[in-house]
Amino acid sequence: MRLIHCHFNFRSSPSCLPKTAKIVGNWQVLPIGLHPQAVEKCQTAYTFATGEEMALLLKTRDRFAHKGIFGHALIAGGSKGKMGAMVLAARSCMRSGVGLLSVQVPASGNDILQISIPEAMTIPDEGENIITSIQIAQKIDAVGIGCGMGTSPETAQALHQLLQSCDKPMVIDADALNILAQHPEWMKLIPANSILTPHPAEFDRLAGKSASGYEQLEKARAFAITHKVTVVLKGAYTAVINTAGEVSFNSTGNPGMATAGSGDTLTGILVALQAQGYSAFDAARLGVFLHGMAGDIAARTLAFEGITAGEIIAHLGVAFNELKNCISHKNSLI
Amino acid sequence: MRLIHCHFNFRSSPSCLPKTAKIVGNWQVLPIGLHPQAVEKCQTAYTFATGEEMALLLKTRDRFAHKGIFGHALIAGGSKGKMGAMVLAARSCMRSGVGLLSVQVPASGNDILQISIPEAMTIPDEGENIITSIQIAQKIDAVGIGCGMGTSPETAQALHQLLQSCDKPMVIDADALNILAQHPEWMKLIPANSILTPHPAEFDRLAGKSASGYEQLEKARAFAITHKVTVVLKGAYTAVINTAGEVSFNSTGNPGMATAGSGDTLTGILVALQAQGYSAFDAARLGVFLHGMAGDIAARTLAFEGITAGEIIAHLGVAFNELKNCISHKNSLI
Amino acid sequence: MRLIHCHFNFRSSPSCLPKTAKIVGNWQVLPIGLHPQAVEKCQTAYTFATGEEMALLLKTRDRFAHKGIFGHALIAGGSKGKMGAMVLAARSCMRSGVGLLSVQVPASGNDILQISIPEAMTIPDEGENIITSIQIAQKIDAVGIGCGMGTSPETAQALHQLLQSCDKPMVIDADALNILAQHPEWMKLIPANSILTPHPAEFDRLAGKSASGYEQLEKARAFAITHKVTVVLKGAYTAVINTAGEVSFNSTGNPGMATAGSGDTLTGILVALQAQGYSAFDAARLGVFLHGMAGDIAARTLAFEGITAGEIIAHLGVAFNELKNCISHKNSLI
Amino acid sequence: MRLIHCHFNFRSSPSCLPKTAKIVGNWQVLPIGLHPQAVEKCQTAYTFATGEEMALLLKTRDRFAHKGIFGHALIAGGSKGKMGAMVLAARSCMRSGVGLLSVQVPASGNDILQISIPEAMTIPDEGENIITSIQIAQKIDAVGIGCGMGTSPETAQALHQLLQSCDKPMVIDADALNILAQHPEWMKLIPANSILTPHPAEFDRLAGKSASGYEQLEKARAFAITHKVTVVLKGAYTAVINTAGEVSFNSTGNPGMATAGSGDTLTGILVALQAQGYSAFDAARLGVFLHGMAGDIAARTLAFEGITAGEIIAHLGVAFNELKNCISHKNSLI
Repeated sequence: MRLIHCHFNFRSSPSCLPKTAKIVGNWQVLPIGLHPQAVEKCQTAYTFATGEEMALLLKTRDRFAHKGIFGHALIAGGSKGKMGAMVLAARSCMRSGVGLLSVQVPASGNDILQISIPEAMTIPDEGENIITSIQIAQKIDAVGIGCGMGTSPETAQALHQLLQSCDKPMVIDADALNILAQHPEWMKLIPANSILTPHPAEFDRLAGKSASGYEQLEKARAFAITHKVTVVLKGAYTAVINTAGEVSFNSTGNPGMATAGSGDTLTGILVALQAQGYSAFDAARLGVFLHGMAGDIAARTLAFEGITAGEIIAHLGVAFNELKNCISHKNSLI
Repeated sequence: MRLIHCHFNFRSSPSCLPKTAKIVGNWQVLPIGLHPQAVEKCQTAYTFATGEEMALLLKTRDRFAHKGIFGHALIAGGSKGKMGAMVLAARSCMRSGVGLLSVQVPASGNDILQISIPEAMTIPDEGENIITSIQIAQKIDAVGIGCGMGTSPETAQALHQLLQSCDKPMVIDADALNILAQHPEWMKLIPANSILTPHPAEFDRLAGKSASGYEQLEKARAFAITHKVTVVLKGAYTAVINTAGEVSFNSTGNPGMATAGSGDTLTGILVALQAQGYSAFDAARLGVFLHGMAGDIAARTLAFEGITAGEIIAHLGVAFNELKNCISHKNSLI
Repeated sequence: MRLIHCHFNFRSSPSCLPKTAKIVGNWQVLPIGLHPQAVEKCQTAYTFATGEEMALLLKTRDRFAHKGIFGHALIAGGSKGKMGAMVLAARSCMRSGVGLLSVQVPASGNDILQISIPEAMTIPDEGENIITSIQIAQKIDAVGIGCGMGTSPETAQALHQLLQSCDKPMVIDADALNILAQHPEWMKLIPANSILTPHPAEFDRLAGKSASGYEQLEKARAFAITHKVTVVLKGAYTAVINTAGEVSFNSTGNPGMATAGSGDTLTGILVALQAQGYSAFDAARLGVFLHGMAGDIAARTLAFEGITAGEIIAHLGVAFNELKNCISHKNSLI
Repeated sequence: MRLIHCHFNFRSSPSCLPKTAKIVGNWQVLPIGLHPQAVEKCQTAYTFATGEEMALLLKTRDRFAHKGIFGHALIAGGSKGKMGAMVLAARSCMRSGVGLLSVQVPASGNDILQISIPEAMTIPDEGENIITSIQIAQKIDAVGIGCGMGTSPETAQALHQLLQSCDKPMVIDADALNILAQHPEWMKLIPANSILTPHPAEFDRLAGKSASGYEQLEKARAFAITHKVTVVLKGAYTAVINTAGEVSFNSTGNPGMATAGSGDTLTGILVALQAQGYSAFDAARLGVFLHGMAGDIAARTLAFEGITAGEIIAHLGVAFNELKNCISHKNSLI
């Protein structure tokens, strides 16, 4: 949905941004009788993701499909005491339609992963408690990097080496973003079709402090254009920004999702979608939407307080199902 | 709800206390036509927690909230053979709305925790099988201490050190209470806004034997005033006592909750609420109420015998949801 | 329900025994108009356990009950490769109303148990892969012994030592029965109020081969009288035999329960009931009935093939609930 | 159901094969009024498995059955990083009606299996990270081999040794097939009543590349006849081929099942059915049908993307139940 109103005076009424939203209060998007063609003609960099639009992005599955078609994802990360982040990312990846998943963790995390997510294969790192080297031995279609990884020098080197040697689409999250903030010269090594998923504090580290949410959003647009990456700037209305600087605000999710591991769960979803051949912008918009939908479904029975990252994962399948039902009769005939 | 009757002759009719309740039999609280203002004016130290009163204590969640707002809790404890107590406390904490959770366990418990509760970060103690030192390296908003911890001298020292160095609200439970009973001089180190959660035998160790439940209750009131702590004196009608000596009897729960780990589960809930900024008295009243409610919901399908601590945790989200529905139409308009 | 027909010609029509049941085919128990007093007067050693009779055995739970009232059980057993038997026994014990549970396993099994059943405390044996010594350090109310334990000489010695030093009611199962078969002189050490749970092959080892199911049943009655133990002779209609030689045939269960670990699950239930103060005969009749009921409930959704020991455990709480509903209006007024 | 149409012009209309199916589009099997006897007389090597036909293959369970009757299965496999394949195979085996299950894994996988599937007994291999020797010490009724096993020389030798020493029906899957492709001379050692479960790429390794799906199917028929094995050639319509070259196309399943571990799950089902005494062809047809049905049931709530191997396993019991309901009134009277 095109945010025309935002186009004209987004700065004075940024209902999707935290600082000013309090003044706006609750709002809904309603038709005001504009002619559809007028809406289409109106140029705006801002859209608001609706269920039907997101559902139309979903690829259909051929009856004769096999595992190879849905891709082989690699997720690398974890460190002593933070292996759970990898468990969550791996579980959400498996529940988002990927064909195969390999997970690289420090050696001391191997059994934790094998016990927690038997569907994934593990690659124990030579480092006992941290990631020290990421080698891609086999055919991989997408890479997730950063969850619970820490920022030790060896791990930073492993990230550098990965960026130099791998040209597959990546999801770069958490500590991988913090390492990038310390090594801005590595930005140019990021493969095409990659996604960065900073929360506001992580984005500040990448691009410098902003005086307001609006300034940060504009910085993120410039950042996405400059570095040719898709940026997922997390928030109540997560902004997904493509390499042309176009912004899609997400419309799902709730404050119960501000819980430990929620971001790791999103990383798993995004890399699963990339491995299935979605473009970075489609993967990011769809993934963010489904992540929020799963949280919204969980909230129906568990309240905001009862939502955990594990419960978001547990409701992902139902979210895919409900999303498919968002397609209106008109479009389902197409 | 104000217990006026209790105010006038609580001693002769303590329907919330075990020894005399048998004589009273089953009872219900019914309106007897007193004028609301008359009830308000009547002074009493005893109240009976109703669902609607507890629901009104719940903080609402802002759409733009993030993990930081819901706090970072630390739970420390466990020992060889009793790591499960920490698993239960960590799981219930995550299901009670906390933003982030770190768990410190003896080194041999690290993987047990990582496998059992991936949403929590772990901090392995230098002690292989017991807690020997609790250092708070990062920003923490509340601390839970004592579950399955044992009372070895090294662990007692770790508790002493923690009390000396940390000024955050704490939930002090189980073996931490037993250590305090051996070192009454450490009581003065307990930070403001902390909660102690003794069952009757643990309270006897802290404050000496009582001849009756009523005497114990009065001792607990004096104890709470003297030591400026909120006391959760566990029982069929758990008494939550604030630093002014006011008592709120809990009205939820059932005898199926007299099961291993039930107390650890309560500790996790309380520290989660403290980390979210609830005062000690509000956290204690709400947490005890929700804990009992989760057990009551579990009992609907599992009978008393089938309730385990894990099932209490599994029903916590639904309890939050049902509690929110306790708000009457009148109050929801406020 | 008194099996009068069985009393008169049980041998010629043993519908509860495998070899002859095929000739009998399906059968039901129906009233044939006998006067209740006539039925009462008629002496028979055989009864058929009905839901209502079993429900009347259930103890009610006092609102003011605490963990101590429901007892502290100890289950010892397990060996390298068979720790799962202990996991299943511990899980079913926790779901059958016990207050506290300690589990002793070989040292290499400690973490397996801690991860699998956090509600239980563990006591690692000094033996790495087998049980070598069972010391009862604290107050224990009932002991379960034998699941997955093996029959090595050190383990046999540990059983001998336990029988010599502990006078609490025991559930003796599986390899503990096989060890007893090799050391019949230890039978006299079995504490009062204990239960032995052999399947037919295990009972043959204890008491010698029988030519028929009927002969085995009569041998089991003599065995129970001689050794003053309650015998649970497992089968399609498990026979629970008290120390007076009276037989209660169980009426629940299905062939889907002939699955690995089903017996370990029963052991956990029985020791939980003993710890709560049920007599051996009541614990055995109730436990066998509930175990079968849980399997029957599981079969409603999972078919016989889909039942696992874990699914029996998962349905135990519902079985307790359904059993309570078996009490007719007449009896519920008593 | 006899595929007469396929018989006459299967080559020109192979709606069950990937390359040509796209041209055919969606299709259903409908009665066209042929006389049943005419259909019976018509000779065809191709049948299409319907629910009712599969349901009639199911063995009924005698009330007096015990664990021994349902067999003792052994599954061997796994390697460092791929122990999860064994977890999945073991779990699905236990949920498919087997009496007892032993699982042999490399030593480093022992605890992973014990924690993940307590119903199974484990046999740790002497190899730390790979299988090096498979000894069958006790009575075993069926063997599953290959899941996550790798193809190292020691493991290949272990397979060779197993084939030489064991005459029980086997399910040979995954890396065991890849080893066989390297050692075609071992094919003659495969015991009678065994099942091979290649996906198309694995079958190419066994029998050489095929120019089309139809050619591959014909090669597989020849292969099954020559080597006297039942072949499960996996695909959208999995072809189950018996030792006479007869083909039963499976009619269940969906593209959500093209997910990691789906094949391991099938192996577990097949070996469970073999252990229960099903012939290789019946086990293969029933197992493939139930596997697909479980996936179809999972898809109702989870969408294709949300299906994991674990979810297929979780729905197996319900699949058995639904399959039993496929028997029409007419046949249920037989």
